[in-house]
Amino acid sequence: MPRGEPFRFQTRIRFIDTDASGRIHYTSMFRYFESAEIELLRTVGITYDLRRYYAFPRVHVECDFIRAIAHDDLIEIEAALTKVGRSSAHFQFLTFKEAALAAKGSVVVACVDRETQRAIAIPDDVRAKLVSIVQAPSESGA
Amino acid sequence: MPRGEPFRFQTRIRFIDTDASGRIHYTSMFRYFESAEIELLRTVGITYDLRRYYAFPRVHVECDFIRAIAHDDLIEIEAALTKVGRSSAHFQFLTFKEAALAAKGSVVVACVDRETQRAIAIPDDVRAKLVSIVQAPSESGA
Amino acid sequence: MPRGEPFRFQTRIRFIDTDASGRIHYTSMFRYFESAEIELLRTVGITYDLRRYYAFPRVHVECDFIRAIAHDDLIEIEAALTKVGRSSAHFQFLTFKEAALAAKGSVVVACVDRETQRAIAIPDDVRAKLVSIVQAPSESGA
Amino acid sequence: MPRGEPFRFQTRIRFIDTDASGRIHYTSMFRYFESAEIELLRTVGITYDLRRYYAFPRVHVECDFIRAIAHDDLIEIEAALTKVGRSSAHFQFLTFKEAALAAKGSVVVACVDRETQRAIAIPDDVRAKLVSIVQAPSESGA
Repeated sequence: MPRGEPFRFQTRIRFIDTDASGRIHYTSMFRYFESAEIELLRTVGITYDLRRYYAFPRVHVECDFIRAIAHDDLIEIEAALTKVGRSSAHFQFLTFKEAALAAKGSVVVACVDRETQRAIAIPDDVRAKLVSIVQAPSESGA
Repeated sequence: MPRGEPFRFQTRIRFIDTDASGRIHYTSMFRYFESAEIELLRTVGITYDLRRYYAFPRVHVECDFIRAIAHDDLIEIEAALTKVGRSSAHFQFLTFKEAALAAKGSVVVACVDRETQRAIAIPDDVRAKLVSIVQAPSESGA
Repeated sequence: MPRGEPFRFQTRIRFIDTDASGRIHYTSMFRYFESAEIELLRTVGITYDLRRYYAFPRVHVECDFIRAIAHDDLIEIEAALTKVGRSSAHFQFLTFKEAALAAKGSVVVACVDRETQRAIAIPDDVRAKLVSIVQAPSESGA
Repeated sequence: MPRGEPFRFQTRIRFIDTDASGRIHYTSMFRYFESAEIELLRTVGITYDLRRYYAFPRVHVECDFIRAIAHDDLIEIEAALTKVGRSSAHFQFLTFKEAALAAKGSVVVACVDRETQRAIAIPDDVRAKLVSIVQAPSESGA
């Protein structure tokens, strides 16, 4: 599968994102992965709505931290949907600081029935939108 | 109104609570005020339940920060319910570090209808429990 | 003192900013007040630097929450520096959601010696920059 | 390597830890992994100190989320140091809710020179303490 232009999300690291080490507290990177995922999904018309019968909780998250990130740094996150399963979707996130890879993460979400919390098939209309943006994982983040 | 033994909540400041200044990020104090409030209310059998028709969002919060608090510090919060109105309740929080006052906060919550988000009278059974623990604000925090 | 065009900071509320009530957790508003303050100060060339001998910890913060804010809401914060004292500075924050006032906060910071944590006079060069943007508090937030 | 009694850290999930889904926001699990790690290390006399020449930033974190966790849930985290390398240490975390596995995480920290941010060998005294608590990863979490 060819990889088109990746989706990019830019943000600035805030003081509240840091810890006493003087750098970003690592959990803050996940905050911005979430923002990037939401904005990526918005490009195909998917937004979160508490009134729907399904939800997409995270079932796996991981991140490698490669370069230090500090207060006031501008970062750019490349977000990609890399796989859509029957009831799951995989995202990859590459965080760049001044063009150098600073973090690399992945997140797997599962489609669940909001009442029972059990996995269900992703609704067809959502699946169609997701499939439209699937890309191969980035080589640079391999 | 006499002031009885205050309710005390102890906790330890975590690394994630700090920022690049090397001390606690001030918003983390509100995290622990919330914990203290929840534990105070538990003593009279009030717990949060999303299925109830009412909720208690915060309508006013404030805090004075008096002494620096850092990673791994043990703090003790004295929490008191200082006033119960028709649809509101006032809490006071005094945070001590090694017996010295380090922060002093207050929080006002309003009882609202969960659907309409409009203020409603505090239900009688909840009010009775709240009134049972009302105390005068602490002098030491004046 | 005339009030010029206020400084405006726009942001979107993220899922991580919400709590089980379905709305924003109130502490997240302080996150965005911080962002607005940082961007306001950047307009006059003031940025945070850990290597300086002084720092500006918060000594008082408060906020009134007027309208519910939820996930994905776009908010606009009007930030103003309303007073500069010998060693303190006062900020006011008005948060608007669809042009209606949703929250109103204020923050007082103190200039302290980073080593001793004692209040010191704001350095002259910083004071000059701060004074250049002082405004009267907003009437709409009165 | 035999596995002795695991180190257990108990905590209660707070309202601030939740999101609009009604359950814990996944990043909050990392907050409590951090607390469990700090308390595990305290048992052998290792505490964080900003004045030391070395630091232990996270270079890899991951977590599987297995069961929903909600506000006010009591959780118990089994924390184990599972490997000590020349400049790295591996931790495993198993989170239980009412005796059922709810999350399983791992964290790799690297010893770095605080100034250069480059990996260095773990100081001998710290290494000796770490080695004293190394355990095989838990089978139940395999």
